[in-house]
Amino acid sequence: MPRFTSATPAPACICVEKGLMAAIDLNSDLGESFGAYRLGDDAAMMPLITSANVACGFHAGDPLVMAATLRLARAAGVAVGAHPGYPDLQGFGRRDMDLTPEEAEACVLYQLGALAAFARAEGVDLVHVKPHGALYNQAARSPALAAAVARAVARFSPGLILVGLAGSALITAGREAGLRVAAEAFPDRAYNPDGSLRSRRLPGAVLEAPAEVAAQALNLAQNGVNGQPVDTLCLHGDNPAAVEHARAVNETLTTAGLILASLKCLF
Amino acid sequence: MPRFTSATPAPACICVEKGLMAAIDLNSDLGESFGAYRLGDDAAMMPLITSANVACGFHAGDPLVMAATLRLARAAGVAVGAHPGYPDLQGFGRRDMDLTPEEAEACVLYQLGALAAFARAEGVDLVHVKPHGALYNQAARSPALAAAVARAVARFSPGLILVGLAGSALITAGREAGLRVAAEAFPDRAYNPDGSLRSRRLPGAVLEAPAEVAAQALNLAQNGVNGQPVDTLCLHGDNPAAVEHARAVNETLTTAGLILASLKCLF
Amino acid sequence: MPRFTSATPAPACICVEKGLMAAIDLNSDLGESFGAYRLGDDAAMMPLITSANVACGFHAGDPLVMAATLRLARAAGVAVGAHPGYPDLQGFGRRDMDLTPEEAEACVLYQLGALAAFARAEGVDLVHVKPHGALYNQAARSPALAAAVARAVARFSPGLILVGLAGSALITAGREAGLRVAAEAFPDRAYNPDGSLRSRRLPGAVLEAPAEVAAQALNLAQNGVNGQPVDTLCLHGDNPAAVEHARAVNETLTTAGLILASLKCLF
Amino acid sequence: MPRFTSATPAPACICVEKGLMAAIDLNSDLGESFGAYRLGDDAAMMPLITSANVACGFHAGDPLVMAATLRLARAAGVAVGAHPGYPDLQGFGRRDMDLTPEEAEACVLYQLGALAAFARAEGVDLVHVKPHGALYNQAARSPALAAAVARAVARFSPGLILVGLAGSALITAGREAGLRVAAEAFPDRAYNPDGSLRSRRLPGAVLEAPAEVAAQALNLAQNGVNGQPVDTLCLHGDNPAAVEHARAVNETLTTAGLILASLKCLF
Repeated sequence: MPRFTSATPAPACICVEKGLMAAIDLNSDLGESFGAYRLGDDAAMMPLITSANVACGFHAGDPLVMAATLRLARAAGVAVGAHPGYPDLQGFGRRDMDLTPEEAEACVLYQLGALAAFARAEGVDLVHVKPHGALYNQAARSPALAAAVARAVARFSPGLILVGLAGSALITAGREAGLRVAAEAFPDRAYNPDGSLRSRRLPGAVLEAPAEVAAQALNLAQNGVNGQPVDTLCLHGDNPAAVEHARAVNETLTTAGLILASLKCLF
Repeated sequence: MPRFTSATPAPACICVEKGLMAAIDLNSDLGESFGAYRLGDDAAMMPLITSANVACGFHAGDPLVMAATLRLARAAGVAVGAHPGYPDLQGFGRRDMDLTPEEAEACVLYQLGALAAFARAEGVDLVHVKPHGALYNQAARSPALAAAVARAVARFSPGLILVGLAGSALITAGREAGLRVAAEAFPDRAYNPDGSLRSRRLPGAVLEAPAEVAAQALNLAQNGVNGQPVDTLCLHGDNPAAVEHARAVNETLTTAGLILASLKCLF
Repeated sequence: MPRFTSATPAPACICVEKGLMAAIDLNSDLGESFGAYRLGDDAAMMPLITSANVACGFHAGDPLVMAATLRLARAAGVAVGAHPGYPDLQGFGRRDMDLTPEEAEACVLYQLGALAAFARAEGVDLVHVKPHGALYNQAARSPALAAAVARAVARFSPGLILVGLAGSALITAGREAGLRVAAEAFPDRAYNPDGSLRSRRLPGAVLEAPAEVAAQALNLAQNGVNGQPVDTLCLHGDNPAAVEHARAVNETLTTAGLILASLKCLF
Repeated sequence: MPRFTSATPAPACICVEKGLMAAIDLNSDLGESFGAYRLGDDAAMMPLITSANVACGFHAGDPLVMAATLRLARAAGVAVGAHPGYPDLQGFGRRDMDLTPEEAEACVLYQLGALAAFARAEGVDLVHVKPHGALYNQAARSPALAAAVARAVARFSPGLILVGLAGSALITAGREAGLRVAAEAFPDRAYNPDGSLRSRRLPGAVLEAPAEVAAQALNLAQNGVNGQPVDTLCLHGDNPAAVEHARAVNETLTTAGLILASLKCLF
């Protein structure tokens, strides 16, 4: 039986010492509503995760949504991170854009600050930063863009943990910027033997059965990707099936004896 | 000869003790460019002022502009404040909008945080907050909106100074929220005997000759508005004539023996 | 049994001659999704209505959503109108804004044209224009704003029908601009004896039981508001209960022998 | 002495028969101001050009600016075309974005309609469509994107002329969509022997002396690019030097006996 889940968070992370016992973070992208538009079931996800990546108003989220999401996370004892994206609300930050490194750095800095204001007002600590969508994917491949993102984080607060795709340019850039980095993997995606994500254009790229997703989560948590350890698993929450996946992953990992703990506790 | 101007800032504000010698702040709205659009001559204004109100991306300004403006202010030794506005780029934040107090508070908080991120990254302290345009004017009249603005500032950082129209609801709300407040007046506007601004629809509402503007500035600095002291004068910088006005005001005040010092030094 | 519903539209509106037999239009605000955000159940509403007011990208809607909504309306035989709003996506166009008449006219003209392009590309005729949210409400009270909206419509196409609150300044302005106007009423709202909407702050302002809404719809269709005839009833479709209301209204009116027909047929 | 310039436009294009005497269009991107932001000197450019490409609100321009620009063009007798761009005001539409063909088609259709509404209201005909910035450049290389742009134009109005980079995929796509196409060249850019633009990263890519620009314009007008005729030359108007270039080009071409005429007259 797991002793710690997000529903009963470890008071001060003391007992979770990495290496001593297996622990992993479960993160989800939340706070993606905007104005009159509702997206995702944040309330349903909170009890299932240990870290919330909160949208910062560029690809999703608005000031009221950000405030509400931080209050929800605080009430659930879930760690909070910023989830900055491209300035593309119409495309939900999922369309590649060609920003200069200076533009990308400034856009990330702006969004970090905006979210940090709500965190401060609500008495919540920012723990991590995870870029969203196309910014995440392009920063996984482009060292220049990855360095820009890492520089924004380091300049804002060198204590923040940078979350990136396991084995990606963003992880490398974060390390080079002196940041702690967290390697992320996706329980609902198939991986190639070399550790890269199987292309969505190929059959079997996306796992759909909850049991399959949960098994993949356990495998990633225990074995990492391509021999490299994984620190955090991404759980989607934007539809009922996704919430069911999250529940299956949470249960499977805790049943297997893994500690679920936020990145704040893992580092 | 004036001993302290923004061009040769007093190293630590020690010598400027309010009450001992007359001192006043000169502020200007800067950083109002956006993307490919240039607005105002920030570089020309910096040597003439002691405080820069920096746009935060809602009514004007963007991440790159904010970063550049803070670097400019730091180099000039000019104090920096946030200049949050309504989410109305098309209207430059000058059109009245009917936000709920919760919306207004969240919008101000968001923008304070965004600017604070650049301030932190550039090693600059935020000193004050001055709402922009329609938000400024509506908060001058509406106690509920004024309270929302003041609450955002106080929740973000109770050390920030709130700038509002002298004698307005915003000044009252700031005091009630426990903030230090700075009463602002306008050298290029005529005042009614009761201390209200003469309506722009009436002749003579806007002063245009530099000498007239400078004389009005000196009068406001020495006598306040309607018997109430004025802490800061607003200088516009969005056209060559405005820069000329600013120069005349700066020279007239310093020649009259007033100390020009940022709000940080005055409180 | 009703002989004409939107599911079996009268081929050429020939039989619906106003005065000969009672007929009324049922309209709904559709196409209010944006990017990744879904709002309303347009597909469920289409068979229940005769006119679709399609959002034009300012308060809601985006180019892809507009194209999809027009295709849906065409397939359902539902008449299409433009639903322009304030440039306030964050507030869903529901917050009062203080635009000049020139700004309002230009904003409406822009949105009419944008929607008309999709109508042309999809081979659909634009029949009517109904302002959205705060623009609708402010234009109901302000003759200057109402005239600006009417002017935009008349300049774009004098054959378009302008929909406004029954008895409002918008109806008057439309007539003065030489437009055909359609008086709208709300089945889910209580009315005061003088024909004005009962304030939402008072109990009983909003009707919630489907039977009550349907009875109010029948009353409005048969008796008008304050002695003035009503041409179109607004049905909301943004939640399951709203769709249920729409179904009850549609059934009650057709059972009572009223012809449901778009404004194109009624004028 | 030139007989026809934009200042004294040929009343009905009758005398300009392509093949009989050399004629060329001079186009410029206008209407790029937004809200409080002014960009370019449209009034100075109008007498020097024969076609105005008017921004449509996505990368630049707003409803009031669009209305004003059309009035200016009408008064100057300058032909009007739409200048649609990416939805990226912050980047002025100059940053590559990865839209699907469906998104690109819908974005172009939306903007064509918006501008056409002002054209209709002002009694001006739309003559051509020229994509802006990154959309122009990406559509020059990508057949799928080019086909999407051409499809939007053809669906909106098959009588519109599509302007694209001479020899580009957009020209090909326009022809395949059954549109008349106009090949564009740049007097202030150096060309490689194969007709491609010399990379901006290489020295000499951008011509700066007015005489040099004018000579390049004459060469392009008389000899085309890589043996292919050029129908229209792009003149920039966003700074005083650019206006001076435009004047030099206009004078050199008319002195050389070329007829300056809008695309409406050339086809």
